[in-house]
Parts: sequence; C-alpha cells; structure tokens
Amino acid sequence: MSITAGIVGASGYGGTELIRLLAGHAQIDLHTIAAHSQAGKPVAALFPNLVDSGTFDAVEPEKLASLDVVFLATPHGPALELGALLYDAGTKVIDLSAAFRLSADDFLQWYKQPHPRSDLAAGDSNANNDVVYGLPELHREAIAHAKLVASPGCYPTATLLGLSPLTGLIQPNTIIVDAKSGTSGAGREPNDGQHFAHVDGNFTAYGAPSHRHTGEIERWLGADVGPISFTPHLLPISRGILVTAYATLRDGVTQADVTDALTDTYRDEPFVHLLAAGTFPHTKAVAGTNACHLSALVDPRTNRVVVTSAIDNLGKGAAGQALQSANIMCGLEETLGLTTIGLYP
Amino acid sequence: MSITAGIVGASGYGGTELIRLLAGHAQIDLHTIAAHSQAGKPVAALFPNLVDSGTFDAVEPEKLASLDVVFLATPHGPALELGALLYDAGTKVIDLSAAFRLSADDFLQWYKQPHPRSDLAAGDSNANNDVVYGLPELHREAIAHAKLVASPGCYPTATLLGLSPLTGLIQPNTIIVDAKSGTSGAGREPNDGQHFAHVDGNFTAYGAPSHRHTGEIERWLGADVGPISFTPHLLPISRGILVTAYATLRDGVTQADVTDALTDTYRDEPFVHLLAAGTFPHTKAVAGTNACHLSALVDPRTNRVVVTSAIDNLGKGAAGQALQSANIMCGLEETLGLTTIGLYP
Amino acid sequence: MSITAGIVGASGYGGTELIRLLAGHAQIDLHTIAAHSQAGKPVAALFPNLVDSGTFDAVEPEKLASLDVVFLATPHGPALELGALLYDAGTKVIDLSAAFRLSADDFLQWYKQPHPRSDLAAGDSNANNDVVYGLPELHREAIAHAKLVASPGCYPTATLLGLSPLTGLIQPNTIIVDAKSGTSGAGREPNDGQHFAHVDGNFTAYGAPSHRHTGEIERWLGADVGPISFTPHLLPISRGILVTAYATLRDGVTQADVTDALTDTYRDEPFVHLLAAGTFPHTKAVAGTNACHLSALVDPRTNRVVVTSAIDNLGKGAAGQALQSANIMCGLEETLGLTTIGLYP
Amino acid sequence: MSITAGIVGASGYGGTELIRLLAGHAQIDLHTIAAHSQAGKPVAALFPNLVDSGTFDAVEPEKLASLDVVFLATPHGPALELGALLYDAGTKVIDLSAAFRLSADDFLQWYKQPHPRSDLAAGDSNANNDVVYGLPELHREAIAHAKLVASPGCYPTATLLGLSPLTGLIQPNTIIVDAKSGTSGAGREPNDGQHFAHVDGNFTAYGAPSHRHTGEIERWLGADVGPISFTPHLLPISRGILVTAYATLRDGVTQADVTDALTDTYRDEPFVHLLAAGTFPHTKAVAGTNACHLSALVDPRTNRVVVTSAIDNLGKGAAGQALQSANIMCGLEETLGLTTIGLYP
Repeated sequence: MSITAGIVGASGYGGTELIRLLAGHAQIDLHTIAAHSQAGKPVAALFPNLVDSGTFDAVEPEKLASLDVVFLATPHGPALELGALLYDAGTKVIDLSAAFRLSADDFLQWYKQPHPRSDLAAGDSNANNDVVYGLPELHREAIAHAKLVASPGCYPTATLLGLSPLTGLIQPNTIIVDAKSGTSGAGREPNDGQHFAHVDGNFTAYGAPSHRHTGEIERWLGADVGPISFTPHLLPISRGILVTAYATLRDGVTQADVTDALTDTYRDEPFVHLLAAGTFPHTKAVAGTNACHLSALVDPRTNRVVVTSAIDNLGKGAAGQALQSANIMCGLEETLGLTTIGLYP
Repeated sequence: MSITAGIVGASGYGGTELIRLLAGHAQIDLHTIAAHSQAGKPVAALFPNLVDSGTFDAVEPEKLASLDVVFLATPHGPALELGALLYDAGTKVIDLSAAFRLSADDFLQWYKQPHPRSDLAAGDSNANNDVVYGLPELHREAIAHAKLVASPGCYPTATLLGLSPLTGLIQPNTIIVDAKSGTSGAGREPNDGQHFAHVDGNFTAYGAPSHRHTGEIERWLGADVGPISFTPHLLPISRGILVTAYATLRDGVTQADVTDALTDTYRDEPFVHLLAAGTFPHTKAVAGTNACHLSALVDPRTNRVVVTSAIDNLGKGAAGQALQSANIMCGLEETLGLTTIGLYP
Repeated sequence: MSITAGIVGASGYGGTELIRLLAGHAQIDLHTIAAHSQAGKPVAALFPNLVDSGTFDAVEPEKLASLDVVFLATPHGPALELGALLYDAGTKVIDLSAAFRLSADDFLQWYKQPHPRSDLAAGDSNANNDVVYGLPELHREAIAHAKLVASPGCYPTATLLGLSPLTGLIQPNTIIVDAKSGTSGAGREPNDGQHFAHVDGNFTAYGAPSHRHTGEIERWLGADVGPISFTPHLLPISRGILVTAYATLRDGVTQADVTDALTDTYRDEPFVHLLAAGTFPHTKAVAGTNACHLSALVDPRTNRVVVTSAIDNLGKGAAGQALQSANIMCGLEETLGLTTIGLYP
Repeated sequence: MSITAGIVGASGYGGTELIRLLAGHAQIDLHTIAAHSQAGKPVAALFPNLVDSGTFDAVEPEKLASLDVVFLATPHGPALELGALLYDAGTKVIDLSAAFRLSADDFLQWYKQPHPRSDLAAGDSNANNDVVYGLPELHREAIAHAKLVASPGCYPTATLLGLSPLTGLIQPNTIIVDAKSGTSGAGREPNDGQHFAHVDGNFTAYGAPSHRHTGEIERWLGADVGPISFTPHLLPISRGILVTAYATLRDGVTQADVTDALTDTYRDEPFVHLLAAGTFPHTKAVAGTNACHLSALVDPRTNRVVVTSAIDNLGKGAAGQALQSANIMCGLEETLGLTTIGLYP
C-alpha cells in the first residue's frame, strides 16, 4: 500500500529533482505534478531527461489536500498560503521554501514581510510542536512526528551540518561562512546573470552581506555564536555547494576535539561522510545525491578551525533532503529513493 | 541467491562506473574490483564519490574464474588474454574493450595486431555461437545464451542504434557520421589533450579518418552500406556522446518510412527513446543513464536523412550496456540497476 | 586625423565585441554606441569588462549619418531600415545582420519577408556595385569600393573560407556541413535554451534542416555545388565555431590538389592559417581573434574531403570581420585593431 | 631602437602568456623563447594559438646574459640559479617564481630549503637595493631602479592589492583570505587533479592551511596584521582568481573610511578598478588583461570589511604584471602591450 504524493512548483529545479527522485522511489506514488505557469505542457518540453512524465498539472488545493504528503517547491509567497491551507486540512506538508523556517520576527527582518502564521513558523517560540525545521541529522525525532516540515535552505544545510557540532568549541562572534553555489540554486527563470555566456568561465560574489540565508543560519546555529559573516558566490557549475567556514577556537581546543565532536554526531548517519583532516570535499562527488561530505581542519598558527562541506544544492540542499524528511514522516526507511554515490566523473 | 561478479580494470572510467552501478544493483554482488596499477589503494582516493568502496584488488585470474560473471574494463591488450582465459574456464565474461568485437581480419586492419583467437572474435565467421557482439536491442537473443560478450564501443553504440533500422532505406556509400564525445571517453590517464585548461572552452576534431571505431561501425551496420566517413570530436563535457549521421535516401523514401522503421524497431525497448522529427536529443538528458535518445529527420531538399543520437558514453556507451548484457546473460530483469532518467540540470 | 564611427545595437554580443575591438584601434574613434533598449545605462552594467565605456546612447539616425562609418549590429529588421537610410545619406555602412546578404528572392525564401530594396541586397543581380558581401579573403577589391557591406554570418564565414577554394574539385550535391557553435552566437537575450544550467555539460543539434544560414552558404558557394545539408549544434562554450564539412571529390582529385587549392588561395592572407592535413583546428586557439584556422583531409577510402574550420563567432564571425572590412573601406591597414593570437589557455 | 628580451620556461602557462603579450608589444623584441624540455619543438604543437612563433629554444645562459631583459618563468629551483647568474652578469631579470620573493628565513620555512643568496631575497633585510618585490602599484619607484624583480604570486597579488591600503583600519589577527583560482594556476603538467573530467562541474579546497602563498602574503602585508588564514580553492575555469578577504575593523571605522583608503591609493592606477560597494568583481571581466577589479564592503552587523578582488592569474597574477615591471624597468610606457578590457563574454 503505497503513499500518495504531490508536488507543487514542479517546473522549478527543486520540483523537477523531486520528480526524478520519486520516479525511483518504491513506496511513494506521485499523483500530481503541479506547476501553475506550465499546466498542460509536457514535462519533457522543459526537462528532456523526464521523457515519460506526462504533462504538468494545474494547482488544485482540494485535490492536493486529499494526498498523503505534498511537497511545496514554490517561492515562499505561494508556499505561505498553500502550506497553511494544507496543514489546516491535515495533509503532511514538506515545504522547500523559506516560508516556515524562521521566527515571525526574523521572517519580517530578512524577507521584509510580516509572517501570517507564527504558529507555523518553525523558528518561532509560538510554533506548534508538529511544525519542524527539517534537518534530519539534527531534528530526526521531531520530524517523525511533524505535520509541516520547513525544509532547510541549501546554504544553511551545508553550513549547519558543518558547524552545529562545533558550536561549543568556538569563540562567539568569529564565524565567517564563505559559500559557493552552482547556478541551479538561482532557479530556472532565465535572466542575464544566469545566461551561459556570462557564467561560463566566470566567478563572482553576490548578495553579501544581506543574503537571506544569513538569518536562517544564525537562527539554527543558536544565539550564542553571534552574528556571522556570510558571502555567497556563483560557481560555473550546474549543481553543488561548497561551504568554507572559519571560526576561532576556544582556548585549548585541538584537532582531536573537533574531529571527535563531528565523529560523535555523524557516526551512524547514512548521508554524512567525514573526510580526514587535510583532505577536502569535492562538490562533484555528491552530484545527484543526498550526501554531505565534511572536513574540519584546525590550524594552530591562527587557532582557527576551517570546515569545508559539500552537498548537491538540489539534493541534500533541496529535493533530496525533503524526500528524506518525507520518508521519516511517513514511517518509511529513511534512505528510500536516495543515493550517496555521486555521478563522477 | 545473488550472482557474484568482478571487475578488472576498475580504476578506469568504465570500471568505476560499473562500481557505481553495481552498488545499486539488488542481485549482483561485487566481490572483486581489480586494478593492476592501483591495487591496495582506496577507491575513494581516485574517485571521491565512492567513499565506501574499500581498496582496489590485485588481478588474480583464478579468483576471477570462480565468479559468476567478470567485467573486463581494461585496454584490449590485457582483455585479449584474460578474456580467453576466463572464457576457457567457463566464466561468463563481458568485455568493454575492442578485443572481441571485430573479425580477426578487421582487428588486424584497425588495431594493427593479429587476433590470437578468431573463435572469440565476435565479428568473425569462425566465432563460437556463445561469443556475441553485445548490443541488446539488436542481439538480445544471442546475448541470453552468450558466454563471452564483446560490449560495443561508445561511438558504435550511438551510431548503430540510429542507423541499423534504416540501412534498407538508404543508398550505399552515402553515410557520414559526425560524432562528438565528452572527455571521459578518452580514459582516465592524464595527458596534455585532456588537461582542463586545454579542453575548457575548446572544441576540436581528432583521429579522422582512421579512428578504430570506423571499422566497428562498418562491420555491424553490414557490408551493403559501403565505407563510411567517421569524424570524432572532443566536447568540453565530462560525459555524453552525440552522433549526427547523414545518409542519402533511396528513391521515394519519406519521413514516414524512416519514422516507421525506427518505431517498429524500438517500440518496446526500455532504453531507447524516439523524439519527434524536428526535435533533437540532448546529451545531458541521458547523463548517468543507460538510455539512448534518437531523432531522425528527412530533408526533402537534399533527399537526406539526418539521424541524431545521444547516449552517456560511460552508460549505454560502456558500463551501463555491459550491465544490461550481464542482466540478460544471468537471467535477471534486463533493467535492474539501470536508469533512464538523466541527471538534469 | 582619425575616422569617426558609430555602433547601433551596441548592447548585443556583436556590438559589445566591436566596442572592445575599437577601444584598441589607433585610427577609428568611436563616437556613438547606440542601443535602443539600454540608452542611458552604463555599458559596464551589462558588460563588466568595459568599465570605462560610459553609457549607451539612443539611436539618432541624423547623428549617425554624420559619421564616417556605422556598424549595424541589430537584428535584420531594424538593419533593413537603418542601413538603407544611411546608405542613401552616403554614410559607409557595415551591417552584421542578414539584411543585405542574400538576393531578394532568397531573402523571401529564408527570412519569410519581402526585401524592400533589391538594389541593396548584395546577393541580388540588381544590387548596386557598392553593395558587397563582406568576406575580405574572397571580395577584397569590391569591399575597398563599397558603401554598404553585408558582413557574413558566422557559420557561412567558417564554411565559405573552408569550401570556396575547393568547389571546382568536388562533385555536385555532396556537400554536408556539420557545424558547432558557442552560445554567444544565439545572442544576449536570456532564454531557457541559453540558461547556464541547461547548456553546461550538454550538447545538442538545433534548427536543421532549415537554418537560415543554409541559404547564405549556398548563395555564396555558387549554384554549381547544389543544395547542402547544414546542421548546426550548440556547444557548451561561450565563443567559437567549428565547421566540419564533407564533400565527395571529383575523379582523380588528391590530397595534394586540395592542399594546393587552399594554399594558393590563402598564402598571403593575414587571418587564415592552414594546418597540415591530419591536424585539426581548435576553437580556443582563435578565441578573441579575427583568425580562421583551416584543415583539409582527403580520405581515399571514401573519396571524400573533410574540411574543418575554426573561428571565433564574435571575431571573424562577426565584429572582427566587420572591422576588417571597415579598415579596407576606409583605406586603413587591414589588420589594425585585430589580432590572430587567441586567448589560450 | 627596441629592447631585446628572452623567456626561460616558455612552455609553461606563464611563459606562453608572455609570448602572447610580447607578440603585441611595440618596443620589446623577443629573441629567445627557451624551454629546457621542449627545445626544438614547434611552439604551436603545445599552444595552437601561437601559430607563428617558431620553435622552443634551448636554455643558453650566455646568450640570455647578452639580452636586455630576461623573464624567468621556471619553477623556483632553476630560477634561483639562473636568476643569480643573470643578475651577477648585469642582465635585468624578472622572475615569476617564488625564488626571490621572501626573506631567506621565510623561504626556508615555507619552501623547505635554505636560500642560497639572501642578498637576492627581496623580502630579506639583507637584500640589495636593486632587488625588488614587483608589485608596481605599491613599489613602482623601486622597480624603476631594480635589476632583479621578484614578481608576486597570483594569490598574493590579488590579496595585497585588496588589503594593503586597509591595514591601518583593521584589527590584528582577524584576516581571513578565502581564495579561488582557475586551473591554469596549477601549471601545464598533466595530472589527475587537472584532468578535465575531474575538474569540470567540480569545486574543492586544497592546500590549506600551509599553502606557500600564505607566507608571501604575510610578508608583504606587514607584520602588524598577524598571521592570516588562507584557503585556496580550485575553480572549474581556465583563468581567473577571485579573492574574498575578511577582516574585523578597528573601532569607528566606516564604509567611507574604507572606500577613501582604496580610492586614495588607486585613483591614478591604470590597472586597478574600484567597484562601488555592494557590487562585486567578475573574474571573466579581466580575462586576458593586466587589470584588477576591487570591491570593499563594510558590514556594520559584524563590524567586518569584505574585500573581493579579481585578476587573471596569468595576467596581473603572472605574465602581465611581469611585463608591467619590465616596462617600468626599461623606461617604457608602463601600459605598453597590456590591456584592461577582458575577453567577455
């Protein structure tokens, strides 16, 4: 008896990656692939890899509410509305946007609009118990009982997996996150900045110092570490994020302490792989997967730790992690439909 | 009760893709990943995606002979020797090199060395019945009873899938095959021509008019079509082949005739997808898969058909097709461990 | 005393490449860089390499008519109108679009609209003597006395330079042109097909068999060679075209005949470089230049010649060639402001 | 009356870029292009853009000593020897390696070998007055009188141009330099890590925390700023470096202070271009040039400045800067043979 699922915003990169993953999932049946702007068009006209996926559906809230689980892969605007509607209807929701990740106050600060439902804002003290920030490695238990999962952003996922186990070892106000992402993180909408001839052979920073993921990282790392510097950059690759994070260590903290903290946290995690200190993760090694490759290196000369963390921004950074949460919420094997072996070379 | 398998030449790109595919195969257990030059080294030191694959094994013929099936992913030199040894021992062999694809005469012509075993040369009139050129869409029955499969080259696979159904419709001596391949087709060995700084932003032809795959295509298209012009080119992508083939049509042949011939051949094939005439396949749509996307377009102005055909050179062009044949030889579901949905974008 | 020049359509890739080239030209002063849609915006906002180029100008025909020479880098629609206006005013015009390249009949056939001025259609028997198809290597004398130069398309340039010297050696109705272009050939306008995430790692054919450059190639190769098959492809590079052209040789024609024909034609040409038969041109070797690298190889097995030809589609295929013609028209050193050494690696 | 020049190590990427630049230089004649391992081979066999550059010469010290100026583009080992020989002979030398950049002590620490000539170690207190670290924007006067110029490393160039004007405004021990380079920085020698199939679509850190450029940056930033964290990364582009540097500001320092410091330093510099705070440099905008694009942004939330700096690692980071110094040393116009407009797109 399989689980029925739907995707809204299926014509974006997060949505199409969910179509790809669910096509190989043994226990979830994809009933609806809704895309407001593309309804009626063949999926393969936009995504030539998905040749047997039929046409995009219209967004029909009542039909969606009748499914077991709905993935929202829209921008946060539509997600705020549809997520609330489905949650109130009792449908399990996994939202890939920022709509439900922060507190209402933080949402106002970083997204410049009031949050309509602080009870559904996972980062808010008023949030319902079944509204959860969906980073399974840190919040697995809560996800298992969640009705609404706010699936983390791509940069926060890579950053939090790297830094969360180390917050007790580092000095406040010293975290710097230098992040690099492939272009699919910017979405499917064509624009000058994503045009091949501009990105190819090019590299640039953007969005600093007020990129919205800054607030999400700070919220979920915890208040004790202080404000962080966060600078995203655009890589000339389609998929992949590498985060290089720096922090000054508390007195006496050694490489062994850092390694132990990470090992203890991730020993049994199926999707997190620790590399030996001094080796560094490759984005391509996790292309197409739900894996995160992590490395942490202590430099005694500067008393800093350098954490490097690689994910596929569409995998562990979006669709993969959303599916991982769906598996947990639905009582399925957590790894179903997900891989850890990247398409390399 | 699973099937035991080994890979020889596992540190090359064909070999490592087999490791990746077999890691997701439910009924074949990979017992040996042998690589002469890398024995004892961690697989992940060469291929950072394969973090849980242990170390490369030495090549031990007796141990290999005890397995159910062995994939040879070495150059044709070692394959000639090891393939014969394993065949004689009764082990099922799938060879990804050119060692057993041609007739002995053609092998001498194109590879400049005598073939030691014409009984094992799949293209030879002396070949044993259980020695088969392994293009499943054309030779499925023979593969099911084969002991030694000569798995086709990457360019021949893309070309033969496109042209074989059309040989009766085209005039002799008119076939031109303009082929373009990603760099992984040239193997893992570093050299000037494969250096990133030389390939990036670059495109060039190479190897014409005497590329060895010319003979393989001619052998398996059949003598009636005459000699072909074959020009390979190097694409600045890691994976993927696109073949653009031209031929002059016999009098009166129409688009409908061409489309029918292809549709009839591939209607039930799980890995071949026909695109409507006037649309064209994308290499990236088949990245990481065992699929072939095909399109054939008749131009009445020139009375030619233009066939475009896309595969992943490491998938349907190497490891994927080898696994497809292994599934057939071992009586398994033909599609096990293989996908048709490319990693896109 | 320098020559005054203007560019219309300066915000497209052809236009911006002209800005770049003219910034290094000792004897042409760029007075106007007009771009209808971008007037008033800083050039560097679109093209971060052009940091000292001020803002885009509006299109003011009277002001343009007062200049010595005007480059039209707009689509053919606006060029038809503005080119006629400036020609009638006595201003030297070099048009980079297709507006004036064909005969009026061919223009109707391939561009689906009547040509308003057959006297300005360079390919028409009614064309004025000072209206010239601007391929300097073949029409240098005429360009020197031209008032309106129809600068060739990128694909025709690469194809004609390769095949024109050989038309007497090949059999009619046997020419096949398989062409591959970087994405800048498709223009600056963002769209799905040019999005980085779609082009990166991808390769596909498009536009066959009715790409408009087919007619241009046929017109300027000459009627005797018959209709050609022309298939363009999109390369995942920003700049560069490689054309691979095939033709069956007349009886008895040898490699020496082919080599001689090319050598005789190009011996003294500053921008055409012949490679030895069996070596092949690299697009990256001509990146940023006005050069064409050419190679012709005879295959006795098939009795065909394979000609490979590489240019920078924005250089010799657009802005570079336009400037070369401008130099000739203005009585300047033909090579001024142009280079032959590509940016490699 | 032109200046005679030679290049040693001409077959590496720095050397070949010098050949390209000097081909367009009006007043320097390149007499010798020496490459130990390639002597007698055509330059175009390695670099297809340099079709008219003859063959590589052998390294003949006496012949080199008779030239006006010699560029050493070898590794630091040969440069130590040849640089000393030519300096002693009175020939002007510009060395692109690390042989003469540091103090003898620092050289021992970072390069693990004793420095044979502390009088020729530009960073040493014993260095002769005519031995100079060749960053023209900071040491123009000294370069004008130099006999031996130690041309800066690529990462140090981008970093020092960004941070040097700000050292008085920032707190000690707070500098973090996150640097990203194209692959040509790793040299022409083929190896696994530079293979196209490994670099394409990939991104990774390497070499931290002991990359040798760390010491060079610290030496030339000055002791007061304390040890820095330096993490280089490998970009999937051929050319280009982007450095993102972070530092905590002294109390009360504002965006205006930072902007003023940079503007004052670079107002009249032909090769340094300041971008407005909040915009960020693109590596591709400086491809093929000697330019540096710089941006500095103050984040009041964290009290840090983020400096981003882009150069072409083979241009301002190697051959371009070496030529800039040569122009200064030889009393020529400083910008001769150099451009500021990158090849974009």
